[in-house]
Amino acid sequence: MRGAILYGPKDVRVEERDTPRILKPTDAVIRTFATCVCGSDLWDYRGINPAQDPAPVGHEYVGIVEEVGDNVTTVRPGQFVVGSFFASDGTCVNCRNGYPSNCLNREFVGGCQAEYIRIPWADGTLVATPELPTEAQVPDLLACSDVMGTGWWATVAAGVQRGDTVAVVGDGAVGLSAVLAARELGAERIIAMSRHESRQKLAVEFGATDIVAERGDEGVARIKDMTGGIGADRVLECVGTDQSTHQALNSTRPGGGVGIAGVPHGVQIDGTALFYSHVAVQGGPAPVRRFLPDLIDRVMTGRINPGRVFDLTLPLDQAAEGYKAMDERRAIKTLLRP
Amino acid sequence: MRGAILYGPKDVRVEERDTPRILKPTDAVIRTFATCVCGSDLWDYRGINPAQDPAPVGHEYVGIVEEVGDNVTTVRPGQFVVGSFFASDGTCVNCRNGYPSNCLNREFVGGCQAEYIRIPWADGTLVATPELPTEAQVPDLLACSDVMGTGWWATVAAGVQRGDTVAVVGDGAVGLSAVLAARELGAERIIAMSRHESRQKLAVEFGATDIVAERGDEGVARIKDMTGGIGADRVLECVGTDQSTHQALNSTRPGGGVGIAGVPHGVQIDGTALFYSHVAVQGGPAPVRRFLPDLIDRVMTGRINPGRVFDLTLPLDQAAEGYKAMDERRAIKTLLRP
Repeated sequence: MRGAILYGPKDVRVEERDTPRILKPTDAVIRTFATCVCGSDLWDYRGINPAQDPAPVGHEYVGIVEEVGDNVTTVRPGQFVVGSFFASDGTCVNCRNGYPSNCLNREFVGGCQAEYIRIPWADGTLVATPELPTEAQVPDLLACSDVMGTGWWATVAAGVQRGDTVAVVGDGAVGLSAVLAARELGAERIIAMSRHESRQKLAVEFGATDIVAERGDEGVARIKDMTGGIGADRVLECVGTDQSTHQALNSTRPGGGVGIAGVPHGVQIDGTALFYSHVAVQGGPAPVRRFLPDLIDRVMTGRINPGRVFDLTLPLDQAAEGYKAMDERRAIKTLLRP
Repeated sequence: MRGAILYGPKDVRVEERDTPRILKPTDAVIRTFATCVCGSDLWDYRGINPAQDPAPVGHEYVGIVEEVGDNVTTVRPGQFVVGSFFASDGTCVNCRNGYPSNCLNREFVGGCQAEYIRIPWADGTLVATPELPTEAQVPDLLACSDVMGTGWWATVAAGVQRGDTVAVVGDGAVGLSAVLAARELGAERIIAMSRHESRQKLAVEFGATDIVAERGDEGVARIKDMTGGIGADRVLECVGTDQSTHQALNSTRPGGGVGIAGVPHGVQIDGTALFYSHVAVQGGPAPVRRFLPDLIDRVMTGRINPGRVFDLTLPLDQAAEGYKAMDERRAIKTLLRP
C-alpha cells in the first residue's frame, strides 16, 4: 500500500509500505477513507522535536472496517468508523474515569497517512457511524478524530459553562475547533485571538463574537480591557509555547479556568504566580474517545460542521505539498484522500 | 494596647502599640477574643521570606465588635465575629465570583496578635455568630478564620467529591484541617501523609483512614501502591515547597485534581509533565469568607471541632514562646489569649 513517511525536517515522501494486518484478536484493520495533517505533526516536520529515524506519519483517520480480530464485538467489516489517535482498551480504570488517552494499555495510532491502518483495541477505540456518511460529512467526521475532539477537550478542561466569556489562544485548526466547542457549550462571548484574516473569518462562522489580533502582554491587556479588567472566565490554550501558555494564564480571571490543548514545548509555570492568580489549569492529550459518540451525533444531525477547518484537499500522494502548505500557513489544515 | 511585633528572625516581642480606631466608614474595630500563630507566619519568623522592618504580626482572629463605622450594616457592637485574613468588600466581581481573597479592594488584615484589631470592609469580611459561643467553641471558630477555611478550600480547589480517595500532603494545622474538610465533603478514603505521632493521631480523629509516613518519591510510590497504581483522585497540598508540590502532583491519578493551599516557595511546574499527567490544579490564598457561614454553622451545631489543632494555649504576652514551640515542632498550632 501507499503511505507517507517523514525522513527528516521538511522531507515527507509517500512510498510503498507493508499493508497492515491483524496482529492481535483485539485489532481491526481499516481502509482509510480520509486522513489529514495535524498541527502537532509540524513540530516533527520542522525538526523541533528530536530527530527520529524515517517514520510513517499521521494519526487522524476515518475509514471503512476491512477486517476485525476474533475478540472484536462492537464494529464489523463494512462499517464507517471514527477513532482517536490513542487506541484505548475502554475497560481500564483511566478509561472508566474518562481518560482513554491515558489508558493503561494505550497505543499510539501512528502512520495513518496511508491506505490502510491497523487499529489496536478496536472495541475501545473506534466508534461506528449509525449509517454511512455523505461525502460532505466525511471531513466533519475526520475532524472529530482529533482537532474537534481536542478543541472540545480544551473547553471541558477549562470548565466552560453556559454564559461564560471564553478566550481562545491560537487560531490553528484546534483553536478554531475550540471556538466551535465553546459555542456548543453555551459560552456567551467568545474571543478568538487571531491575526490571520481567513482564520478570523472561520472563527466568526464558528461562533466567535470578538477577534483580538494582539499577542503576548498586549493580548492580555486587550482581554482585560474587554472583561472589566479581570480577564475571561475560561481561556483555551491551543498552541503550546511558553508565550501562548502565559498569555492564556494571564488572560484568565481569578477563579477562572485554563484548558491546555496545545502540546507544551518548553513551558515552565511559576508556582507562586499560578497560586496568587487563583486560576485553575488542566490539560493533556485530549480524551477524544470520550467525546466521539456525542460529536458524531452532532455531525450526523447537521448541528456542527467542524470539517470546515480543512481548506486544502489533496490526494495522499501529494502529502508533501499538504505539509508544506500548512508549514507556510497557506492552509489551516490539509485533508488527504488515499 | 498590647500587640506582638516581629523584629527579625526568631525575634517576636509583645509591646505597647497604638490602639486601632475607625479610619473609614466601612471599618470595624474588634476586641480580640482569641488569636493564633499560623504556619505561614513561620516563613517570616524563620527569615525565609525577605526581611522587613519590625512589623505587627498575626492574621487570624475572633472577637467582639467594639465599634463600627457609619456605613457598616451587617455587624454591630457586642456581636462575636469571625473574619478572614483578607478583608474584602463583598461586592466586586471577584467577590461575587467566590474569590473574596482576590477582592479588587482587598486589604490584608495584619497585626492581629493584639488586643484590638481594625477590620476594613467589615460588612464583606466579618460574619457574626448567631449567639455568643461557649468557651469550648472559641478555638473552633478561631480555626475557621484561616486554617479550617484553608483546608476546606484545598478540598474545593481539588474538586473532592463524595466517594473519592483523597491524599493530604502536610500534617500541619492546614493539612489536618484538610483531612477534616475531606471527611465533611464525603471522601471515602483519606490518606494523611504524616510522620509525627501526635499529628497522625489527630489526623485519624479528623477522619483519616490511612497514614503514610514516606515523603517525596517514596511517598508517591506508597500512594500509587494503595490506589491500584494510578494515584489518588484528589490530593491536597498543604506545605508549599517544591518537593511537596511535586509529591502532590505525582500522587494524583490521571484526570484527578490537586488543590494547593500551601503558599508556594520556589515552586516551578514543568508544563510538559503537567500536561501528560492530565491532572487539574488550582490553588491560591483561601477564599475563606466564602466558606465562613457554612463553617460557623458546622461549628455551632457541634458537627466539627477544628479547634483541636490548637495544642498549646498561651497568654498573648507569651507569643514568643508560642512561635518557638511551633518552630521546634513541639506544638501544631498555638492559640493566644489577650
